[in-house]
Amino acid sequence: MATVVNLHEELREIGRRARSASHALRPLTRGVKDQALRTIARRLRDNAARLKGENAKDLEHGRNSGLSSALLDRLELTDKRIESMAKGLEVVATLPDPVGDILSQTVHPNGLRIAQIRQPIGVVGIIYESRPNVTADAAGLCLKSGNACILRGGSEAIHSNLAIAELFIEGAREAGVPDDAVQIISTTDRAAVGEMLKLDEFIDVIVPRGGKGLISRILDESRIPVVAHLDGVCHTYLHSDADEAMARQIVIDAKLQRPAVCNAMETLLVHEQAAQRLLPLIAEDLQSRGCELRGCERTQALIECNPATEEDWTTEYLDKILSIKIVDSLDAAIAHINEYGSHHSDAIVTESYAAAEMFLDMVDSATVYVNASTRFTDGYQFGLGAEIGISTNKLHCRGPMALKELTTAKYVIRGAGQTIG
Amino acid sequence: MATVVNLHEELREIGRRARSASHALRPLTRGVKDQALRTIARRLRDNAARLKGENAKDLEHGRNSGLSSALLDRLELTDKRIESMAKGLEVVATLPDPVGDILSQTVHPNGLRIAQIRQPIGVVGIIYESRPNVTADAAGLCLKSGNACILRGGSEAIHSNLAIAELFIEGAREAGVPDDAVQIISTTDRAAVGEMLKLDEFIDVIVPRGGKGLISRILDESRIPVVAHLDGVCHTYLHSDADEAMARQIVIDAKLQRPAVCNAMETLLVHEQAAQRLLPLIAEDLQSRGCELRGCERTQALIECNPATEEDWTTEYLDKILSIKIVDSLDAAIAHINEYGSHHSDAIVTESYAAAEMFLDMVDSATVYVNASTRFTDGYQFGLGAEIGISTNKLHCRGPMALKELTTAKYVIRGAGQTIG
Repeated sequence: MATVVNLHEELREIGRRARSASHALRPLTRGVKDQALRTIARRLRDNAARLKGENAKDLEHGRNSGLSSALLDRLELTDKRIESMAKGLEVVATLPDPVGDILSQTVHPNGLRIAQIRQPIGVVGIIYESRPNVTADAAGLCLKSGNACILRGGSEAIHSNLAIAELFIEGAREAGVPDDAVQIISTTDRAAVGEMLKLDEFIDVIVPRGGKGLISRILDESRIPVVAHLDGVCHTYLHSDADEAMARQIVIDAKLQRPAVCNAMETLLVHEQAAQRLLPLIAEDLQSRGCELRGCERTQALIECNPATEEDWTTEYLDKILSIKIVDSLDAAIAHINEYGSHHSDAIVTESYAAAEMFLDMVDSATVYVNASTRFTDGYQFGLGAEIGISTNKLHCRGPMALKELTTAKYVIRGAGQTIG
Repeated sequence: MATVVNLHEELREIGRRARSASHALRPLTRGVKDQALRTIARRLRDNAARLKGENAKDLEHGRNSGLSSALLDRLELTDKRIESMAKGLEVVATLPDPVGDILSQTVHPNGLRIAQIRQPIGVVGIIYESRPNVTADAAGLCLKSGNACILRGGSEAIHSNLAIAELFIEGAREAGVPDDAVQIISTTDRAAVGEMLKLDEFIDVIVPRGGKGLISRILDESRIPVVAHLDGVCHTYLHSDADEAMARQIVIDAKLQRPAVCNAMETLLVHEQAAQRLLPLIAEDLQSRGCELRGCERTQALIECNPATEEDWTTEYLDKILSIKIVDSLDAAIAHINEYGSHHSDAIVTESYAAAEMFLDMVDSATVYVNASTRFTDGYQFGLGAEIGISTNKLHCRGPMALKELTTAKYVIRGAGQTIG
């Protein structure tokens, strides 16, 4: 009982400090923030050996507790990955500072000057799993956008995360960033996440990074608004007139270039008039690359594949598996995507102007594509520099969450004695 | 038990229809939406007698059940108020349509054209009390922004609300708006609100309009994101150099021009160097107009007033009551506002450039003012045409929620076969 009380109080104290730091961060200039990011990058590079040493503890513990080789790979900090973390912070230092941007400015008939100005949100909570680079990436984006942050990484990476955070905090302090702008929760007690999600008084938004289990738990438990996507059930729809070569290239890329990511395709929809022409070729393309196919009844009649069940249409495989459905029309494809999809990223392949425009208008997803792979949904690809996550929320932000999406606005009104009466 | 199940199913069916209508609304042109708003305005005017007849039932029921005269006044539909509702819809018809606005457009080095475009949010749930005009105002803003809406008004205005909604729906249909774009919950069963707040599958955002009890219940219960403000504890701070005439005018206006609204001042902060000069005059101004004053100890030493308790600093009186605190410095004023305020609207009165800028930067509120009354926080005053509410959320929107704030964005990407591999 004592530890529960302590954990509760410990988390509240971290929250209080973050709120107070968020006020101290407000007057920070871009110059100081960028200098801090460069200083931290240097410290990460200079301390690569120390980071690898701490990381070795996590890897050993992971091996002993039977982590899969895929998870061990994600956990590992190599020289290349440390350099990439440092470089990432330097890139963020080159990005424009969104704080202070004027979103609108009007003059009231009575002379009041009414401006809407970008501000940091305040305090951002980041809850993440396995990849230790998120510690530096997320803290860097929060610092650049003037937000205080509270980091909570997975227990499997605790030594790596603490070491990165320590270097980050030291570098930030050296450059003149207020204390507590970045804090990391050092306990691996799972109850700490629950306590963190209750801190609505101190934390303005939770950004989770991780698997569906983690996101789902956070969405259920959080009293704080959450910006995230739960699933990435992305579709590619081949319209009746889809170009054969383009369709094949896009399907291979969207499914297989990196199957374990959220913007990879999980379901292929094919217009019935294109099915006979395209599906056998696509089946050969994918099966020869080790991809399992699960088709609807009409698909099964055309190609060798396993049967798809109703559950397949809502499943994010994150693996070399693809569900395939033949549809009667563009409308049926759109209806399928809006009903079964996760509103993340969906594409049409077509030569038809009308079909392309209809698809772009009617598919209710964060990102919709014509004649391109869904794999482009990513802050870096969109020219945002970096991202802290991808949102399928409709409120606040939709799609990649980058620096601008880490801000809110404030109306700043300058008068000369105006009253309403 | 049977009714509970029925209510649950009834609300889910309303939700399903709203979601389906939201898809049907997507291709609606501005021409059709504006024509619908004008048609509805005409119907409201043409049916003023019918509206007053239905409203009379609510008024009679209200008188019988002992509603206060203030509430009865808010409930009443006069010819002037009906005209004002109609006129409001016509004004919304003249406002720019935010749907389709391009928020950004970039070209990827590989040629992909990446545009971020405003879209309707989808389905908006509005839960409101007493004033029947909200039925038309809120539905009009949702229609203009391409959102389907589900209205749930208070039981005290049920006949008025249903009559307005019926005319609205008929007018919308006449102009070619899809069915179910506007739905109103016709049962007065309080459990319907609870059922509505569970419809996260079908409703994208809840916008409550009403007293603290209602908002608080909704914030606690809702599984759907809520955009609202709970409190309007607004401050005016008189800096040491505040101009006497300006300070007195702004204080009278902010406190007394309409004390029952959210942007009225509840706490006056006075720099110790201005207290002796200004407080006796201000006390006379306010007390002669029937306003009760509650002061801190130092205030009590300067003027005749009741003692303020700790609770006063967080209380929204919505009445002719003002709490007053003397502070040692600008920093102390800012700290008080950030700690005790509701982050709604706060003002400084000063002649000092540095004090003004510091206040604007450091006060963490949706709207901050220099030398003006807090009473201006309002979508109409800000040039937004109309508002569906005021948000003290930091996510999605902050300040007045108008047409733009009723939209989300979508990335629309046009390619020519681009793949990432």
